[in-house]
Amino acid sequence: MSTTDEIERTREVVARLHAELPRWGLVVWTAGNVSQRVVVGSEPGPDDLFVIKPSGVTYDELTPEAMVVCDLDGTLVDGTRAPSSDTAAHAYVYRHLPHVGGVVHTHSTYATAWAARGEPVPCVLTMMADEFGGDVPIGPFALIGDDSIGRGIVETLRDSRSPAVLMRNHGPFTVGKDATAAVKAAVMVEEVARTVHIARQLGDTVPIAQADIDSLYARYQNVYGQDTK
Amino acid sequence: MSTTDEIERTREVVARLHAELPRWGLVVWTAGNVSQRVVVGSEPGPDDLFVIKPSGVTYDELTPEAMVVCDLDGTLVDGTRAPSSDTAAHAYVYRHLPHVGGVVHTHSTYATAWAARGEPVPCVLTMMADEFGGDVPIGPFALIGDDSIGRGIVETLRDSRSPAVLMRNHGPFTVGKDATAAVKAAVMVEEVARTVHIARQLGDTVPIAQADIDSLYARYQNVYGQDTK
Amino acid sequence: MSTTDEIERTREVVARLHAELPRWGLVVWTAGNVSQRVVVGSEPGPDDLFVIKPSGVTYDELTPEAMVVCDLDGTLVDGTRAPSSDTAAHAYVYRHLPHVGGVVHTHSTYATAWAARGEPVPCVLTMMADEFGGDVPIGPFALIGDDSIGRGIVETLRDSRSPAVLMRNHGPFTVGKDATAAVKAAVMVEEVARTVHIARQLGDTVPIAQADIDSLYARYQNVYGQDTK
Amino acid sequence: MSTTDEIERTREVVARLHAELPRWGLVVWTAGNVSQRVVVGSEPGPDDLFVIKPSGVTYDELTPEAMVVCDLDGTLVDGTRAPSSDTAAHAYVYRHLPHVGGVVHTHSTYATAWAARGEPVPCVLTMMADEFGGDVPIGPFALIGDDSIGRGIVETLRDSRSPAVLMRNHGPFTVGKDATAAVKAAVMVEEVARTVHIARQLGDTVPIAQADIDSLYARYQNVYGQDTK
Repeated sequence: MSTTDEIERTREVVARLHAELPRWGLVVWTAGNVSQRVVVGSEPGPDDLFVIKPSGVTYDELTPEAMVVCDLDGTLVDGTRAPSSDTAAHAYVYRHLPHVGGVVHTHSTYATAWAARGEPVPCVLTMMADEFGGDVPIGPFALIGDDSIGRGIVETLRDSRSPAVLMRNHGPFTVGKDATAAVKAAVMVEEVARTVHIARQLGDTVPIAQADIDSLYARYQNVYGQDTK
Repeated sequence: MSTTDEIERTREVVARLHAELPRWGLVVWTAGNVSQRVVVGSEPGPDDLFVIKPSGVTYDELTPEAMVVCDLDGTLVDGTRAPSSDTAAHAYVYRHLPHVGGVVHTHSTYATAWAARGEPVPCVLTMMADEFGGDVPIGPFALIGDDSIGRGIVETLRDSRSPAVLMRNHGPFTVGKDATAAVKAAVMVEEVARTVHIARQLGDTVPIAQADIDSLYARYQNVYGQDTK
Repeated sequence: MSTTDEIERTREVVARLHAELPRWGLVVWTAGNVSQRVVVGSEPGPDDLFVIKPSGVTYDELTPEAMVVCDLDGTLVDGTRAPSSDTAAHAYVYRHLPHVGGVVHTHSTYATAWAARGEPVPCVLTMMADEFGGDVPIGPFALIGDDSIGRGIVETLRDSRSPAVLMRNHGPFTVGKDATAAVKAAVMVEEVARTVHIARQLGDTVPIAQADIDSLYARYQNVYGQDTK
Repeated sequence: MSTTDEIERTREVVARLHAELPRWGLVVWTAGNVSQRVVVGSEPGPDDLFVIKPSGVTYDELTPEAMVVCDLDGTLVDGTRAPSSDTAAHAYVYRHLPHVGGVVHTHSTYATAWAARGEPVPCVLTMMADEFGGDVPIGPFALIGDDSIGRGIVETLRDSRSPAVLMRNHGPFTVGKDATAAVKAAVMVEEVARTVHIARQLGDTVPIAQADIDSLYARYQNVYGQDTK
């Protein structure tokens, strides 16, 4: 498929996936954004592009044509609107993590609440072991406007099985092999943040042994689903 | 009705009931599954089959044709997709509890939160006495992949009036005379888990005397509804 | 209008108002019921009738024709299905409180949570002063099957400005001049139960002086809305 | 555009924006109201008008024609129904804050819960720094019926970057350059009130340094969105 065709297809995917964010209650108003890498050449590399939502546009207005295309420096290469103010963070992740094909950012309530306390979500649910392989980690506090958010995401996720990081006082960023996988991780991180929060409200949770976490994670990553995850 | 016709009818019922899970907020993404027994012969027995959802398929894709059919060892006998990864647990329940005609599994938030603490939901609501006849019990921690989840469900429910068990660190499994009754139990267990959780957040709940629980349960099981429950 | 016409009109009103209960999140599955008095003669009296939902029927099936008509002893006088299992309580209220034209019962979550602790909802919101004129009171624990629920409702509401009572370990019953007003009270009691619960989770609420509560209540009952409330 | 045309256009805007309140879960039944200033002359002044919802009308009935027009004393100048009972407060704000073009009032749950404790929402989220530039302040307790609510709003907002004030024991009022901006502030104040509430339920939140709050606020107010906010 030509890069032009791939960009068109990716605009449709990214526009459609934005609708999943309000559907699952992850965003209000215009907060939150989804992007997906467009590989230019035979494998992921520095010449890749990505498609992302423009800034300050409501979810009712999100069409494929409204999406914008950026290079891996975060510079707009196609589109009539300014890209999302989180574009630099997405670009940094694509530059430094070639296996990542999709990135999602939300301020989903329970995940952001753990981020406001700077506390990782402990792995006390079998579905967390399946999906995250352990705790959901906390990233550093970082101001918007340079590479510090992107760097915080990459440094935190490099040492973790988790496809989600909770940036301190800010909210979750999630990654995946494509934007669909990153959206799934955004849905699941809010779900486990909410369930563990509620469990902890009335007392201590029962830990899961590390060996059991490892066993659940290995099985789920290998056999779940219909060939694709 | 022939077994073939019964399987077709059951595929429709099971597909339709899966839509109840997101409708009542019990599942996100592809989590959760519903199954119903197909009696082969004059009464429930080891040659029965059951219809269940395939693995890793979203709720928007759930048609009667997509459902799969398994025998009571959990082996796929009809269908083009892999059965749910929880199939072995459903099969174990049907093998060991002949009066059970439907099984449901979810990770509904409040029920799963009690499961993460390993704490039964105490019977402090008249609607719990009606529907559950007492506390909602906790089942053991069990890894997926062999009979341990099914065995934990059966051993816990055998000694209880409750049609719901909260598997530790995992989530609720519910049973009923058919899949509709098991879905109702899945909806109700989340509702009572949520209400009692909220009650307990601000202090102690008032217990209901055992004799009153028994009286409410006996009345409800005998006279409620329009002949069928 | 003839009693027959009035009954037909009331069947439509009561069927339509049942849809408000799931719309506002007050009920799950088949729980909850709405009724409205049909005055027989020139003013409310012992020969009146009321229209109520049948027992154990889902909210998707609630048509005017499905509604049933009872006399003030709770005996079915028109309809093909058994009346709601809460019919005796509704009948008792209509028999003893002639100014009440509508009754609603739900197990809405936050109101039921206060009921499970046996704790009145304190009047710490101006909208509570407006609508309830003070605290929302707790009624006694009562078993279903005789007059004890109805008697508990009437004895509690007689001494209160509140159109809502939280029956202990059970849930809210609300009353009004008609079923619409009782449904509004059911919506509002859940809203204030929820808001005050959340306020109390993080500390003490600020009381409102009794004179201010009285002033807000008097104003609201006299001047709010477009002539009708 | 003539004042008559401007009024017609504003009726449409205000009617449409009321639908945002239930959409985002900010109101139940008939609570909550939105208004927008109509500038009469070359700049905002004492001869301006504003469009607001009538009193006690459900959200399903809100058409442009149902909206009412008042002058800045809160006197009805066009419309067939009584204006909202909160009209005096809206009028006071427009009289005293000429840069305010829109006002919204709700009883949204989490914002009202902070108001019931009389406790400001601390700025511990980057999105709060962006949108509110600091804590969300508490206004005084005030009875309805004279200028005391309006005066409380104006005195509190004059000394704050926040477009939202939580009136004690009552609920949030928000302002903006137009009604759309005030509705956005109403949605965001509930979101941050909810997220910080949930964060605080399990422990202390991490503060954000004042310099970082200032930096985030300055950036967001200057560069976010597509020219308009």
